[in-house]
Amino acid sequence: MNFMNRTNPIGFFDSGIGGLTVVKSVIELLPNENIVYFGDTARVPYGNKSNETVIEYSLQAANFLLRKNIKLLVVACNTASSVALKELRRFLTIPVIGMIEPGSKMALQETKNGNIGVIGTISTINNKAYSNQIKKLNPKVKVFEKACPLFVPLAEEGWINHKATELIAREYLKELKEKKIDTLVLACTHYPILSDVIQKVIGKNVKLVHSGEPAAKIIEEYLNGRGLRNTSNQLGKREFYVSDVPNKFNEIAERFLGTKIKHLYKVELDELTND
Amino acid sequence: MNFMNRTNPIGFFDSGIGGLTVVKSVIELLPNENIVYFGDTARVPYGNKSNETVIEYSLQAANFLLRKNIKLLVVACNTASSVALKELRRFLTIPVIGMIEPGSKMALQETKNGNIGVIGTISTINNKAYSNQIKKLNPKVKVFEKACPLFVPLAEEGWINHKATELIAREYLKELKEKKIDTLVLACTHYPILSDVIQKVIGKNVKLVHSGEPAAKIIEEYLNGRGLRNTSNQLGKREFYVSDVPNKFNEIAERFLGTKIKHLYKVELDELTND
Repeated sequence: MNFMNRTNPIGFFDSGIGGLTVVKSVIELLPNENIVYFGDTARVPYGNKSNETVIEYSLQAANFLLRKNIKLLVVACNTASSVALKELRRFLTIPVIGMIEPGSKMALQETKNGNIGVIGTISTINNKAYSNQIKKLNPKVKVFEKACPLFVPLAEEGWINHKATELIAREYLKELKEKKIDTLVLACTHYPILSDVIQKVIGKNVKLVHSGEPAAKIIEEYLNGRGLRNTSNQLGKREFYVSDVPNKFNEIAERFLGTKIKHLYKVELDELTND
Repeated sequence: MNFMNRTNPIGFFDSGIGGLTVVKSVIELLPNENIVYFGDTARVPYGNKSNETVIEYSLQAANFLLRKNIKLLVVACNTASSVALKELRRFLTIPVIGMIEPGSKMALQETKNGNIGVIGTISTINNKAYSNQIKKLNPKVKVFEKACPLFVPLAEEGWINHKATELIAREYLKELKEKKIDTLVLACTHYPILSDVIQKVIGKNVKLVHSGEPAAKIIEEYLNGRGLRNTSNQLGKREFYVSDVPNKFNEIAERFLGTKIKHLYKVELDELTND
């Protein structure tokens, strides 16, 4: 086992670029932390793939990040968090933070009427990751889940204020609206890009819970608790690795991260699979 | 080199299930041919990935099908046809049929005013595969291309008659309508699923060219020309291999194939990558 140092980076992975919305929240809260991000853009998305395949890809991503001496692994993807967290924790000796627990806790803090909605990929919703977690923490609340598979391509296409996006959102959110939820978990790291239209459709009295903010807080707590917080005064170094660099990658990625990506590197798939 | 036999199967590959619309056309025209299909569902889609990655995946898919003793390889994916055909032809000793040439020829047969539209994935359109091919065959026609990345997830979601699909189609097809095209190539094997709404939006006087029908005709010509047509009186055997079997796979795949999938097998990614 490695000795962990405060200056070791935090590792993040996602199926693609969605996890950059989580990195964005972490950078805002913990600007001095060094960060290594891996986006599996050669095999994106994970949300419509089987559990078996998502577990395999997640272990490969984790393995890649371990070689960067990360002090903490953040699974910045709700699908992988829903499906692969147990396997990752069994396999890794460093702590692993997923999206489900932080988002569930925050939803419970926010709800007043006890009716919580959760929207995510087909895989996240089919695995009932959020309803299981939320009900474990508080069996009295009601959780209503709905898969919204078109939201990821809409976010990537950048159709943020398009009428079609609103129509699609109305269709997806109809049932949740009828259930009178007062809190809605955006259980996919792509969805914050569409939060304006989601808020408009679900109603402004419904509190939206993003993955990034509660995850950033839990990361902060963890690092403080273990004395692993980077105490440097300088901004952290941020490295971004992807398994594919398609056209317009930077343009789309910057929409998610909210800032320019300076250090972008391509990882060959062989580096991931030949372990 | 193997001796080719009339009864050897025709091999097809696609990034996922879209190529099943091509298989459907081939089954209609050549019901006695044996068929082996590979859909790379663990890494779908190809249309938003880089050329380098699409070439790598295509060579792996071809390699897998070669082990099934196919007599002919059909690249039943417009993205892979646009990007990887040259590499596949360099690497393989059996003939390789892509989607671009059949679709381009048919578009030229159909157009009267010489204004042809082409819609496809980001990769197919950025590579200008159709405009290059069509202009090579007839430099006088005008080709107008437009990427429609949301059509694939809409087809997979099955939103065939949804208002949102129509709105999205109106946005994507606006420019092509202004150019007064009389022929529109559906240059993605997913798009035939949405042909009703596409026809409605582009206008009923515009002829839609699917990939499957012209490809089936070229396959028939090729087999007849080489004496490789399967002369059996029985229906061909049809085997379907996929790299991942996600939820609802059969339901979605049957929408594309138009019939039930009887022989479905899962291929491990190692089988593809460890060559």
